[in-house]
This record gives sequence, structure tokens and C-alpha cells, in this order.
Amino acid sequence: MKRIGVLTSGGDAPGMNAAIRAVVRGAVYNDMQVYGIFDGYEGLMNGEIEEFSRSSVSDIIHRGGTILKSSRSPKFKTPEGIRQAAAQAAKFGLEGIVVIGGDGSFRGSVNLLRAGIATIGVPGTIDNDLGYTDRTIGFDTAVNTVVSLLGNIRDTTVAHGCATVVEVMGRNCGDIALRAGLASGAESILIPEVPYDIDKICERMKAGKKRGKNHSIIMKAEGVSIPTEELAHLLEARTGIKTRTVIPAYIQRGGSPTATDRLLASRLGYKAVELLRDDVRGVAVGIHGDDVIVTDIEEAINIKNKPDLKNIELASILSI
Amino acid sequence: MKRIGVLTSGGDAPGMNAAIRAVVRGAVYNDMQVYGIFDGYEGLMNGEIEEFSRSSVSDIIHRGGTILKSSRSPKFKTPEGIRQAAAQAAKFGLEGIVVIGGDGSFRGSVNLLRAGIATIGVPGTIDNDLGYTDRTIGFDTAVNTVVSLLGNIRDTTVAHGCATVVEVMGRNCGDIALRAGLASGAESILIPEVPYDIDKICERMKAGKKRGKNHSIIMKAEGVSIPTEELAHLLEARTGIKTRTVIPAYIQRGGSPTATDRLLASRLGYKAVELLRDDVRGVAVGIHGDDVIVTDIEEAINIKNKPDLKNIELASILSI
Amino acid sequence: MKRIGVLTSGGDAPGMNAAIRAVVRGAVYNDMQVYGIFDGYEGLMNGEIEEFSRSSVSDIIHRGGTILKSSRSPKFKTPEGIRQAAAQAAKFGLEGIVVIGGDGSFRGSVNLLRAGIATIGVPGTIDNDLGYTDRTIGFDTAVNTVVSLLGNIRDTTVAHGCATVVEVMGRNCGDIALRAGLASGAESILIPEVPYDIDKICERMKAGKKRGKNHSIIMKAEGVSIPTEELAHLLEARTGIKTRTVIPAYIQRGGSPTATDRLLASRLGYKAVELLRDDVRGVAVGIHGDDVIVTDIEEAINIKNKPDLKNIELASILSI
Amino acid sequence: MKRIGVLTSGGDAPGMNAAIRAVVRGAVYNDMQVYGIFDGYEGLMNGEIEEFSRSSVSDIIHRGGTILKSSRSPKFKTPEGIRQAAAQAAKFGLEGIVVIGGDGSFRGSVNLLRAGIATIGVPGTIDNDLGYTDRTIGFDTAVNTVVSLLGNIRDTTVAHGCATVVEVMGRNCGDIALRAGLASGAESILIPEVPYDIDKICERMKAGKKRGKNHSIIMKAEGVSIPTEELAHLLEARTGIKTRTVIPAYIQRGGSPTATDRLLASRLGYKAVELLRDDVRGVAVGIHGDDVIVTDIEEAINIKNKPDLKNIELASILSI
Repeated sequence: MKRIGVLTSGGDAPGMNAAIRAVVRGAVYNDMQVYGIFDGYEGLMNGEIEEFSRSSVSDIIHRGGTILKSSRSPKFKTPEGIRQAAAQAAKFGLEGIVVIGGDGSFRGSVNLLRAGIATIGVPGTIDNDLGYTDRTIGFDTAVNTVVSLLGNIRDTTVAHGCATVVEVMGRNCGDIALRAGLASGAESILIPEVPYDIDKICERMKAGKKRGKNHSIIMKAEGVSIPTEELAHLLEARTGIKTRTVIPAYIQRGGSPTATDRLLASRLGYKAVELLRDDVRGVAVGIHGDDVIVTDIEEAINIKNKPDLKNIELASILSI
Repeated sequence: MKRIGVLTSGGDAPGMNAAIRAVVRGAVYNDMQVYGIFDGYEGLMNGEIEEFSRSSVSDIIHRGGTILKSSRSPKFKTPEGIRQAAAQAAKFGLEGIVVIGGDGSFRGSVNLLRAGIATIGVPGTIDNDLGYTDRTIGFDTAVNTVVSLLGNIRDTTVAHGCATVVEVMGRNCGDIALRAGLASGAESILIPEVPYDIDKICERMKAGKKRGKNHSIIMKAEGVSIPTEELAHLLEARTGIKTRTVIPAYIQRGGSPTATDRLLASRLGYKAVELLRDDVRGVAVGIHGDDVIVTDIEEAINIKNKPDLKNIELASILSI
Repeated sequence: MKRIGVLTSGGDAPGMNAAIRAVVRGAVYNDMQVYGIFDGYEGLMNGEIEEFSRSSVSDIIHRGGTILKSSRSPKFKTPEGIRQAAAQAAKFGLEGIVVIGGDGSFRGSVNLLRAGIATIGVPGTIDNDLGYTDRTIGFDTAVNTVVSLLGNIRDTTVAHGCATVVEVMGRNCGDIALRAGLASGAESILIPEVPYDIDKICERMKAGKKRGKNHSIIMKAEGVSIPTEELAHLLEARTGIKTRTVIPAYIQRGGSPTATDRLLASRLGYKAVELLRDDVRGVAVGIHGDDVIVTDIEEAINIKNKPDLKNIELASILSI
Repeated sequence: MKRIGVLTSGGDAPGMNAAIRAVVRGAVYNDMQVYGIFDGYEGLMNGEIEEFSRSSVSDIIHRGGTILKSSRSPKFKTPEGIRQAAAQAAKFGLEGIVVIGGDGSFRGSVNLLRAGIATIGVPGTIDNDLGYTDRTIGFDTAVNTVVSLLGNIRDTTVAHGCATVVEVMGRNCGDIALRAGLASGAESILIPEVPYDIDKICERMKAGKKRGKNHSIIMKAEGVSIPTEELAHLLEARTGIKTRTVIPAYIQRGGSPTATDRLLASRLGYKAVELLRDDVRGVAVGIHGDDVIVTDIEEAINIKNKPDLKNIELASILSI
């Protein structure tokens, strides 16, 4: 192909800008024309599209968020929406589009594909909930952000000898809670994939107290069924240890990407360009070990992510 | 005096450890014995007291929280509590006590003073709500922490073209919201000392939108009457701009202290020791400009803090 | 005045962008036209000048460096250089120019002033070597950067039980070394304003060793006469403690400005605009305590900066 | 086995403390006694050995350096040294020792092994120069540290429109330079594994200048033959672009470990304990993809590390 577009869709993730940069500069290097599509599928339908050059992506590799903006577009899910999007792509002569986003964005790209536009999926989401790839762009940064927030929270938790329940992002996937919790020595970790056990948490809190260690951090992914406030009250009632809550929310979604995310984004973004250059369509790029992998996009969507149960056990062994 | 104690009380603040270090090493340097009192006034009443040496405070200048722990003690407000505290001080031969904390802790120190124990107040609180001193220990760190959190929040706020209401600490004092908001270019800043004006905030949001700038950050100190969720709903309803909320909560209370807080804590902690050495009692130390100041503690408590209205105006001029 | 320019000159400093933003938006707010002058006096002579609007300075308050670029211009020191600069200012109708920079840049502004162009000096330099103001823009950030670098250096210094000499910026002024050293618990601090004493440093190193503490950090401002490598060899030879060196160099000059620097830059930049608006010329703005001050620029240049000797003594009392 | 020791040796690396924590708590969990050996092989020979408990490793997972200290020991390379070490191990009843360090430390462990002490190697070095494992503990942190330093350096490099040569650690292995350079968009990257080409670097600098981009960052691993100062002079002479140098040195070795390094250290440290528990000896643990691997230690030492040439090419495609 000779003319492609790139968009970011769904929740933004640190490293999306590094991926955009790799797509744009990779395309120029391969003598392709490249267009930035703003505001995700919404902007594709509305023709918010402009040609990019090398310098359009200068000085962005280190920036969080996405210079292309992002959105969630219900309309794009309708036949009319797809039709409009395809029409705009045709109008700008876009033969292929690199879609940087999460699982919802990948589903959208399948609709585009059926409408005759080549699409390549690049996994950009902090949640790490795509099973076909070891890691998604933004995950490493989000985990490190949470680890640094936990450092602050631990300071004051220790100073006051209390407990703190920290709710982190992850509706279906507990990877952020699990990795950040293990890396921070959290006393307990609750994730959606594993039923939680109030008794066990209370035991651990009481065991700590008996050893003169009142403070503890309980990591909880947002997808865990019990509301965070309710969990805190329960724990306080049953242990007699004052229990606070903190919900970092969108703080987890921003920030300058880590080296790991910048590298991953650069490698996957460039691979997406090579694939379009070679007229490949309807795949997602990912990472396995240190190798870039290419998976059929519909398969990619259906591969379930599974939590690393070994790490859950390890966390509980090392944290108390 | 020849034998003193030091305690931290109330909410912990970054820099408390640097102050403890200055008290302990300053005392040793001045040939005084120095005791660490754990868990604030609670620990004083219960005799959780041990002698400290230079090495007791090694490697803590950079750490958030307080190695002496902290607490709020209702019992200490009773005559019986004061009696116990005085008895313990006598038992350990403590002639004077350095109290590192906020306004509630200073009130407590007045009771000790009346019970015959020399006390010196060192202002340790992130709120900066003590009017007799330009800055309190922990304030500069909390402001910088909030500024860095706002950087993350802005990334995702811009990416999604929405608004975000950020609620920061400050029940009676809006200094954190004001300084962090001004330093981050927040589009609107609400503090307890000034009545808020929903219309004005909405106007600013709409004006931005008209210029193609959908995103905006609204800083709100917790002391502002309207609940944060309610404010967000109101703004969204009246502007049509999606509005989120983030409440960093205890994240603001921890973290490694800034150079400014370490320096302030070192200077004030050492000054407190010099005062006790010279048998001064019942004063609070503070900073004015670059000078360490000494104020009668009862006066100190009664000097109201006033927000810098010039900075409020400046923020609104520069942010849009 | 109705039409002004702004430039940055000399070594860049974190917070310069916040000052540029305040000048530009402050000017627009006061119905003045404002021009960005690129590359300092060099660009003024060459007419690298363009009109700025509010949006020219969007999203820069948090960025290190200077979007206007900076330079040192020998030619500007010549009558011909001044003539060219004045001609360009006239060509663009600039009645006044805000000069953000250090002491050399202020001298340059005096020449402009004599050529009939109103200038206002804004102190932008990490060195804090301007005596008329308590702090210069960039100083607080540089100190915090050095403090964080020292944290890393201490980790490995302690792990290997050795000594490390760290050379920080400051040719005539030891403020960075002094503040960062005190805030980091450096075992010894050498600044240009005070003759250094090798014997004393060695004694402190040996005293530490005797107490089982081999590691120590020696802070040295670049202006101290002895070369850093030579000092390290001398200390190692005389104490038998392995002694390394680290020179962070330009790492100290970049980075996102602290809240304190952003606030200072915003206040001083805006004040500069108000002064030009009111036809004031030939002054420098600065900060004393929490008050913005205005000083005749020639006076400002001649007020010597003096190191805070109390802090030097305090550092040596607290660090061992 | 029932009684083991743990030591850190060679250059310290962020994450060593997380590994020590995993070894100690993992051992206690498996009902083994565990001893901390201070100062590496030097301390083993001298019997600087003490029993550890769970709480010996509290609050260290986030700290850089190593609480066990480290050293390089020429004497340990002698038969007499080995004999002494074995004698001390016998005296304390240590059946196995976990050696956390780099390639030199692994060679040392082979000598211990031959003297009858079971050893397990855990790869702790920022250099990432061990070929048998995808990553070593400390590498991810060092890369992220360099990336953040480069951010500062870029600010001032751009502001002054000059070039900066940054020399990072890596005597035989260019991985830090390569990853950090790619993640930071460095304009040129020089590593020991690939002959450097002055002409090409100059071309890239001149090409940038022609496009109005004077600034550029040249990453250079310390192992590259030409001295850094000399390279800078050469580049400046041949391009006419002012060229500075920065050598972060030991700044790269400290700092709080990233989540990735804490996780890796926790997993490998715990695996080492499991192996000793099961009487395995003479192996090194490592990571491949997301799997912990076990390799014969002599093999492990002999597997050469190879630079990822794809990343070198990618860096040059994306950076200009």
C-alpha cells in the first residue's frame, strides 16, 4: 500500500504517542503517505483527517495521552457509521488504517475490515487484558505509576498504623493490581479472576498486628465485586484496625511512558507499517517474549487473558 | 536543659523525619540527651519513649511519613490524659518536648506547657494552615506531588477532550489547591476562603470549548462546601462537557520530601533544640522570608492564615 | 506600552517557559501585542521575531528548557550589535522587551536600554547568583534535581562503602551545592565563597570510618579551585577510602520545573508585563520573602549574592 | 537443604534488595534457616555473617543498592581465599549460598561449588550482559533512569541548538545505550558490538541542521573505543555544531527499582530458594519470555549476549 492512516481509540494509554510516531516515521521511511485521524472512529466518520510528516510527530515519544485524541463512538457500531467511515477513508484514499487501542477498538477494526479497509491492530491499553500478547502498550507505565503512588500511600499508612484499601483499574483483568501489589509488597491482593476471601485478608491483618505491624495495604482491582468503601468498613469492623481507601482513578492513565512501553510501542507501530506496506490486512501485532508476533485480529480478540496464578501465590508468600 | 524529647502528632507530613533528625543530632551536638516519643501524645501518655543517638536518625532525611509514628489522641485532651503525660515526662526526666505537628498538636502542647513541661512547636502539616509562618513542613512536597498527579490527569483529560474535577486536601485552607492549580495551569480553582461561582466556571469551560479546547481541570479544595461528585454532575449538565472526578486523597500525604521541605525541617528542628538548650519554653518556630522566626505558641495558634488573593486572580488570567 | 517582545538568554533554566507563558498571556490580557524573539539577543539582531497569541504558549508551563531557544552572543556586546538589535526592535515596533536570563543577560539589557528600548529583567538562571532577589527561576528545580541524583549516588556509595565527590554547577555561587548538600545530608560541602579545608574533610571521612560508616558524599561546586578528579585522588590517598567522582553537568539544567519555580516564573513574568504596560523601564523584578520586588537593573546587577553561612554550619552539624 | 546464605557481589544493581527479600522470606516460608553474608565474597571469607528473619528484610523492596553491601574481592580468586570462604560456610553450617551478581560473581560461585558448597546464581547487574537470560535484575531500572536523564539533557540541548554526547555504562554490552537511546529518540547510538561510523553520525547531524534541527543526542556506551571527549571534539570540528558531553556515571546504578525489576528479583530470588530446598546446586536462574529458567552455571557464563540488531536499525529509522 502507498497511503495509510493511523488512529487511537478507546481509553488512552501512555506509549500511544510513541506508537503514532513509529507509524508515521516508519511510513515515510517506506515511501508511503500517512494521515493522522483525530478523535478515533468518531473522527474517521467525520473526516477529521490530515496528512502527517516526520515533524508532525517530533518531540512526542515521551508524552502521555495521545496527540490524535481518542473517543468511544457508539455511532460507529451502526451500519450507517461504518458506511460513513468507509466513505471518508475512500475520500482520502486510505488503503489501510493502523488502529491503536484495546479490545473494543479491535472489534471496531473488524467492521472496517469487512467494509474493505485493511486494518492492523496495535494493542494500546493499560489494562493488559488482551490474551494474544504478553503485554499491551501502557501496562508497564501504569504498573510503575501505581507502584509509586503506593510508595506515598505506604508512608502515611505506616505513620498512622492503619490499613488502606487501594482500588486500581482493571474491570475484567487484575494484572495491574497483581503486578503493582507484588512489586510493592502489598499485604493482600484482590483481582476479578479469583474469588476473594475476607477471612483470609482479616487473618493476615490480625497476624500482622500480633507481630506489632498494624499497617497493611490491600490492593483491589475495580472489577472485584465488592465496593471499595464497603470492603474497608468490613475489614475495619472485623479487625479493629482503622481502614482507609484510596482510588487513584485517572492518575493511572497518564504520565510519561516507561522505556519498556516506548520500545514496545516503537516496535509494534513500525511492524504495523511493514505489514500494510506488504498488503497484509486484518491482523493484530503483539509481543511474545522478545519477539514481535502477528495474529489474525478475530482470533486475537477471542484469546482470553489469564492471570499469573504463580505470582498471586508468590505475593502472599513474600508480603508477610 | 539537658534532656528533651521529640514527638510527631496529627496528620503526618513529608519532612517530619528531616525535622526529627535535626532535633536528635542537634541535641547530641549540644550535649543534650534526646528521647524519641512514639505514636504522638498517645505514646507519651503510655511511656512509649526511648533514648535516641545520632545513628537512630541515619538514612531518614529523604523518607516520607514519620519514624516516630503519629496519632490523634482524644484521651490526651482530658485532665487525666495530661496528668499521665506529665508523669511519663517526669519519669524519663524530660525537661522539654519538641512537638512536630499542626494546629491541633500545638493546642495539645499548650496543655503540656501548663502542666510544667517546656514545649516548642514545629509546624509539620501539608495544609499550610498556620498563619504565623510563611510555610509549614510538608506543604511544598504536597504541592509538587499534586502538580505531578495533575500532569497525569491532564494527559488523559486532553486525550478525551473532557473536564476533570480534582479534589485536593485542605479543609479550611485552600493553599494546596491554589498553588498546585496555578502551577499546573488549572482552568478553575475553588478554595474554602472564597465563595465559588458555578456560572463563572461554566463560562470558562464553554469559552474554552468555543476556542476548540474541550479539556479543562477544575481544582477544588476538600473544604469547599459542594460535594465533588455533585459539582461534576452540575458542570456536565450545564456545559455538555463530560466531567470526571479524581480524589488523590492520601497520595498527597506521602512521598520523599522536596529539598525545600528538608531544608525547612532541618532549620526549624535545629532551632527548636537551641531554644530548649537556652531554656525557652512555649513558643513555635516558623519561617518568614528566609528567616527563622519564634512566636509565642498561643499567639501562633490564633494567627489566621489568609489565602493569597493576588495568586487567585493571576491563575485565572494565565490559565485561559 | 502597546507592543512588547520577550526573549530568553544565556543558560536555559527550568521555569523559563512558565515565565514566557505569563508574559504572553499577561500581555494579551492587558490588550498589548506581544512578540516572541528567538535565540536570545542573537535572534533579536537577526530579526527572528514573530507575533505570539495565547495559544502560542499552551501546554508549556511544565516543560524544561525554553521554547524561544537561547544563546550567548558576543556580537551583541559590540556597538554594531546593539545598533542592529535596536533597528530590529524598531522595525517590529517593539517598545519594550522582557529579558529572561541571568546576570550576563541583564548587562545586555542595559545596553538595549541605552539604545532607547525599555527592558525589564526577569531572573532566569539555576545558579541563584543574583543578589537582589531571594531566588532565581530554575534554582529550586536544579536543587531538587541534584537531590534526586544524590539519592541514586548514595545508594551505590553505601553499597560499596566508598566516598563520592559530586561536582555541581555554580562558578561563583555555591547555593546549589549548599542547599542540595544540606537537603541530602552530604558529609562535606565545598563552595567557592568559603576556602575549603582538605584536613577537615579527611577528618570527617576518617571519623565516619571509625564509627563503621565508610561511605560519604562530598558536594563540590564547580567554582571551587581544585579540580574534582584531583580532589578525589587526594582524599583517597589521605584516607585510604576509595573515592569516586560524578559530574551531573547538564542534567542539572533540564527537567520539568517544580511548583515553586512555575509559581515564581508566573508571578515575575506577569509583573514584568504590568511594568511595561505602565511604561516603567530599566528595572529587574525579583522576589523577597513572598513579595514581588522591583529593582533598578544596574543596581540589581551590582548587588552581590552571599552564601547563607548559617546553613553551611548547620549542614556540618547534622550530617555526621 | 535446611540452612542457606545469601550475598550480593560486584557492582550493585537496583532490585538486589528485592531479591534478598525474596530469598530470606522464601527460605523462612520453606522452613529453612537463612543467613545474610555482608560485603560479598570478602565478607564470606571474613565471616561477616548473621542470621536473618522475615523482619530483617522489611521495607527494602523499593530501595536501591544492597543492604548486604557488595565488593570485588581479588583475594577470593586465590586458593587460600576459597579455602577461607569454605571454612566460614562450614562454620556457620551453610549448605548452600545464593549469589546475586554479575558474570564475575558467577565465576566466583563456581569456585565455591568446587569447594563443595552448593551455589545458585541470580543475575544482578544493570549491564544486561549475561546471555543466558533475557534480562538481568537492575537493567530495566538503569534504562529508565537514563531515559529520564536524557529528558533533562534534551531540554537544554534543544534550548541551545547544540549536540550532546552521552556516555552510559556498558563495557562489553551496549544494551543500556541501545534501549535508552531508542526509547528517547537519540539521533545516533554507538555500542561496543558494532563498529561506529563517524561519517554517518556527522551526516545525520548535518542532515538535521539542514532541516533546521540543530540539536541531537549521541548515545555512546562506555565500551566504545573512542574517548567521549575526543568524539565530541571530532563531531564539533566536522559539523560546526557545538557538541557537549555528559557522563551520568554512578547515577545509573542507584535509584528505586522499577516494578519490572522488583518482580523479576522476587521471582528469581524465590526460585533460587526452591532449588536449594530441593538440593539443586551449581545453576543460575534467569528469565525467558515470562518463564523462569534454570541453566547450568558454567554454561550460563559462557553464553554470549548479542545486541538486538533489529533495534539498532529501528532506532536510526525512527530518530530522524
